[in-house]
Amino acid sequence: MDNFIPTPRTQVKRLPKRGVYDQAQVYSILDEGFVCHVGFAVEGQPYVIPTGYVRSGDQIYFHGSAASRMLRALDGGIDVCLTVTLLDGLVLARSAFHHSMNYRSVVVLGKARPVTDTAEKTEALRRFTNHVVPGRWDEVRPPTDQELKATSVLALPLEEVSAKVRTGGPIDDEEDYALTVWAGVVPIRMQRGEPMPDLAKSPPLTK
Amino acid sequence: MDNFIPTPRTQVKRLPKRGVYDQAQVYSILDEGFVCHVGFAVEGQPYVIPTGYVRSGDQIYFHGSAASRMLRALDGGIDVCLTVTLLDGLVLARSAFHHSMNYRSVVVLGKARPVTDTAEKTEALRRFTNHVVPGRWDEVRPPTDQELKATSVLALPLEEVSAKVRTGGPIDDEEDYALTVWAGVVPIRMQRGEPMPDLAKSPPLTK
Repeated sequence: MDNFIPTPRTQVKRLPKRGVYDQAQVYSILDEGFVCHVGFAVEGQPYVIPTGYVRSGDQIYFHGSAASRMLRALDGGIDVCLTVTLLDGLVLARSAFHHSMNYRSVVVLGKARPVTDTAEKTEALRRFTNHVVPGRWDEVRPPTDQELKATSVLALPLEEVSAKVRTGGPIDDEEDYALTVWAGVVPIRMQRGEPMPDLAKSPPLTK
Repeated sequence: MDNFIPTPRTQVKRLPKRGVYDQAQVYSILDEGFVCHVGFAVEGQPYVIPTGYVRSGDQIYFHGSAASRMLRALDGGIDVCLTVTLLDGLVLARSAFHHSMNYRSVVVLGKARPVTDTAEKTEALRRFTNHVVPGRWDEVRPPTDQELKATSVLALPLEEVSAKVRTGGPIDDEEDYALTVWAGVVPIRMQRGEPMPDLAKSPPLTK
């Protein structure tokens, strides 16, 4: 399957030209982000919790431990919406009305299941860790059985999925192009800074 | 009021030492972000939609136009959860288990109301625009009556609010400090790049 099939729930209705169902593009957005926002409802009240995640094939694994409230609800098989948003730029138009943002976002609907199998959970954690820093898993102390049990991981199938993408400069009304207002895009990047070693407690690297 | 009062719904239960109810700190997190994630439920299904927002006093204004589905639901006075997350760093511990992220997040629960008063809506849009680029509102063409009508703005009171903050280096188990594994923090920043003018259609600045 190269494309997700829009359902009535994932069909992008507003500005439909921004809707993306291409699997490769959806995966590349998911693989670039670190934090997702998971939404679930408890007794009618929605909650939206940021948490770490990683894509693995046609599933997303995400940390359930971020919200005990979420986990209890999800364990019962509650519906979730998992959203990943990458902000790419501030779009400054000549009119206030046409100001916008460049972004790429993915929305996944479905039922999350708690991962209980030890092998699957270990593999999910390996992917989490390597998603943050490639190759990291092989450098660090692996989880003990107790730590594995203490870690809540949930799996969400990538079935009902849509993405929305805006790129490019501002689109102004024809008559506004005559205005002498600066217009364009201020790019936004998530940038990694210089790594800061935990010096206080680290042993020297040669021991 | 200098602090938000935790309710059973906003009391941070997991890792309670990360819970923050200080109004100044909550406001500073909200004022730094550009994109929030709004959660709402329609017939039991949660949706989480990214959208622009700005804080104005003890309210948050956010764009409703991002989701016609959301707006229709919200117009009826549905409950929402609005979450803002700033990712500050990747925390690399000596054990896989203690890997973490530095972040600041705010969760706001409440009922959003559509802003219908023209003066209030104009002021909200002024704040949106200046939140993105200070002073921008006075440089651009202001919205026409028709554009104002076409813009959906929702207001959410900052009453039931909590924040969660993690800072600092990894906290490892005592025996793991002996491991010769690099540990520390990789800082993450949202960085603005060089502005890219909309040259193709911009008139020269002197005309």
